[in-house]
Amino acid sequence: MPAPKEFLDFVDSNADAFIQRLSEAVLIKSVSGDPTYRDEVIKMSNWINQQLQAVGVQTHLADLGRHTMDGQDLPLPPAVLGRIGNDPNKKTVLVYGHFDVQPALVSDGWNTDPFKLTILPNGQLVGRGSSDDKGPVLGWLNVLQYHHQTKTPLPVNLRCCFEGMEESGSEGLDDLVKKESQPGGWFDGVDCVCISDNYWLNTRTPVLTYGLRGLSYYKINVEGPARDLHSGVFGRMVHEPMTDLIRVMGTLVDVNGKILIPGVDEMVAGADVEERQLYEKLDYSIKDVEDSIGAATALSDDKVEVLMGRMRMPSLSLHGIEGAFYGAGAKTVIPAKACTPQSPESVLPLVKAHIESEFKKLGTKNKLHLEELHGGTPWVTDINHWNFKAAKIATKAIYNQEPDMTREGGSIPVTLTFAEALGVSVLLLPMGRGDDGAHSTNEKLDRSNYIQGTKLLGTYLYEVSVAQ
Amino acid sequence: MPAPKEFLDFVDSNADAFIQRLSEAVLIKSVSGDPTYRDEVIKMSNWINQQLQAVGVQTHLADLGRHTMDGQDLPLPPAVLGRIGNDPNKKTVLVYGHFDVQPALVSDGWNTDPFKLTILPNGQLVGRGSSDDKGPVLGWLNVLQYHHQTKTPLPVNLRCCFEGMEESGSEGLDDLVKKESQPGGWFDGVDCVCISDNYWLNTRTPVLTYGLRGLSYYKINVEGPARDLHSGVFGRMVHEPMTDLIRVMGTLVDVNGKILIPGVDEMVAGADVEERQLYEKLDYSIKDVEDSIGAATALSDDKVEVLMGRMRMPSLSLHGIEGAFYGAGAKTVIPAKACTPQSPESVLPLVKAHIESEFKKLGTKNKLHLEELHGGTPWVTDINHWNFKAAKIATKAIYNQEPDMTREGGSIPVTLTFAEALGVSVLLLPMGRGDDGAHSTNEKLDRSNYIQGTKLLGTYLYEVSVAQ
Repeated sequence: MPAPKEFLDFVDSNADAFIQRLSEAVLIKSVSGDPTYRDEVIKMSNWINQQLQAVGVQTHLADLGRHTMDGQDLPLPPAVLGRIGNDPNKKTVLVYGHFDVQPALVSDGWNTDPFKLTILPNGQLVGRGSSDDKGPVLGWLNVLQYHHQTKTPLPVNLRCCFEGMEESGSEGLDDLVKKESQPGGWFDGVDCVCISDNYWLNTRTPVLTYGLRGLSYYKINVEGPARDLHSGVFGRMVHEPMTDLIRVMGTLVDVNGKILIPGVDEMVAGADVEERQLYEKLDYSIKDVEDSIGAATALSDDKVEVLMGRMRMPSLSLHGIEGAFYGAGAKTVIPAKACTPQSPESVLPLVKAHIESEFKKLGTKNKLHLEELHGGTPWVTDINHWNFKAAKIATKAIYNQEPDMTREGGSIPVTLTFAEALGVSVLLLPMGRGDDGAHSTNEKLDRSNYIQGTKLLGTYLYEVSVAQ
Repeated sequence: MPAPKEFLDFVDSNADAFIQRLSEAVLIKSVSGDPTYRDEVIKMSNWINQQLQAVGVQTHLADLGRHTMDGQDLPLPPAVLGRIGNDPNKKTVLVYGHFDVQPALVSDGWNTDPFKLTILPNGQLVGRGSSDDKGPVLGWLNVLQYHHQTKTPLPVNLRCCFEGMEESGSEGLDDLVKKESQPGGWFDGVDCVCISDNYWLNTRTPVLTYGLRGLSYYKINVEGPARDLHSGVFGRMVHEPMTDLIRVMGTLVDVNGKILIPGVDEMVAGADVEERQLYEKLDYSIKDVEDSIGAATALSDDKVEVLMGRMRMPSLSLHGIEGAFYGAGAKTVIPAKACTPQSPESVLPLVKAHIESEFKKLGTKNKLHLEELHGGTPWVTDINHWNFKAAKIATKAIYNQEPDMTREGGSIPVTLTFAEALGVSVLLLPMGRGDDGAHSTNEKLDRSNYIQGTKLLGTYLYEVSVAQ
């Protein structure tokens, strides 16, 4: 069921007002990762709460308690839950977004004040949170405003979950989602979930996302001397932890990205011709990779190989070395990162066995200790579910294009939280483009993505209401 | 010629006053590496200047100009030159020391105020600069005070060179030494040099030092993406600089300290039985290594192997990795350190050839660039020179022990400056013990090392006056 023409016209004629509302949202410096901005994040909770109430949504500021950050005891910003409609003949759709943002300072390299939305002549709306994730959250508000203002009933029962700690590990959200998914909770009866918090693969083609690679994060500790030693005095007298560590790190991944830990790459079956065709069809090229990274250093000239490296294969990145930059005997501590479509639980024993065996081979007197830091379970869902079919029809209606079906290389843990707590289809329906620079400087959302994206979210609700 | 008994008695009976003078010196926070303390370093130049004048030395505050540190234009603290005696029938001895110190904050882990000399019950004089190098500089002052106060002529003509930038690369000193070594300069006619600015090998046995390993410092730059990339999004899509760098670093040195760059270890001839006996005789044990480093991770159980690793073999330490700790596409930049008895000039082509060849083998699309940072030429001198013979006799007279003849693993560049500018024998005659913690927290000088060390410096002047 297409969205009413009146809705689409309303979005076009209210575009400037919608951008004005986005300016107001960007003005609130809701940086969740910096304790000094905590009041601003809480202010943002209240702003979202008032905006939702103003468009007829019944809301609840869900207290998530307190936590410790940088040694400070702080209140968590409340999550904003919303409810509109309770018609047993309608589907119930839960939408998720977050209103906290990454830190941003002009001195990081912004061309404009990051907390003042700047409209460039090319239509880019530049400001922290414009694309990640205030734009998409306000997209839902825009949709609701039409229905409230014109007294048009929504085609579905809607539930909202907007949080203010996404950029800092979504603290407190898991428990809240589990609790509210119980009978009688705010999410009871939800039929499907729509999360708008990722990006198109490129700058041209809309996307539906159906998979996440997951994450396993490790730290290898090598300890020898009790303190840093002068390399002039102690060089070639002692086993140096850095030497040991570098040699072990060198056994983890080859220069072409192949993971050398036995059994890890092998856990993922090879792609058959049919699966390769899925990647072949995606609107992406080696030039897109090169433009994104600013260098001609893609691992392959074959776009299918490169896309499979991102979407279906595990990847292993060496992130850095903790410990003294100067001084040979530094207590060196290293995190290595292994992102795989396998579960962290199944990967850990392979990583542990390999690293311990390589370390043993060295014959050093230093000590090894492997720490598992954090993990994210991989996720892949059924792209033939009515939730995806509805989103596909809606995308074609708004963009006149087939969406690319993608998986993300990273982890969006809340996806799994909803999938597990509710046992329903979760759809990732991004609003922004691949070059929005979400966690970077000069983050932007294109005006057309904001406006067409608002139409897409509304149209999705109409299509999902009849999908099967 | 032994020092007069009156001199030795004078030192004993004035010990408390000498310690009091060391307290005054420690009180001046002459941290040369921190622009905020520059006034204190200059104050220290003036203090030393006045102290020298008070014991009858003709002095000159040598202006070294200005320099830039941390973006600030600063005056360099003047070096203090001194002259006493001009008797053509006496030898002329140049003594060197420095009066600037490393930074020190209680919060670094000092048990006491670092700039207030604290006398512990075990006789340790704890304070920044007590051992490095205010104690030895004041040792010379103590010797001069006896001769001035008792109107006893010195057995030699003495020249002093005390500087205030040693901990910050001895800026300006090279040019000054070259200039003053010319005919008519302050160092014209110098017959030998004595530098007291290093340490005993252990805590028991005095030392004469006759060699330095030298230093070559490199930085390997691997550059790929134009900016940091999200490893979730770009992992296994691009050549990661960290992967390349770790693999190249892994080819430089093995876990037992053997340098894998072809030709570098081979430049040093093996030790014959006779040379091994030199190391066998040194008062040192594996337990001394383990006590120093706080762990049982010495490279060998054979003390001769461990001492040769420090004193005659090149060593290669991997110091760290510059670049983002987080983010797979970091522009990673790594310093590797190769300390060898070979000259930096002869080592560079070997290092360059090896690293470039290993990088080429990787087949990565990233770019490599090797930077040579700084170097120090190695130095070994003749231990049978009369300068060393005199120091040996003086050591036996004061400590009733044969000194250990050592080489240092690090570099003390001023040694080479004097050796080259003057073309005379340079002796390193340390005052402090191996556990003084020169650049570390709770730096100390043992009372007995300060007092016996003062006697040693004075006795050395008497022995050197007749040595041949």
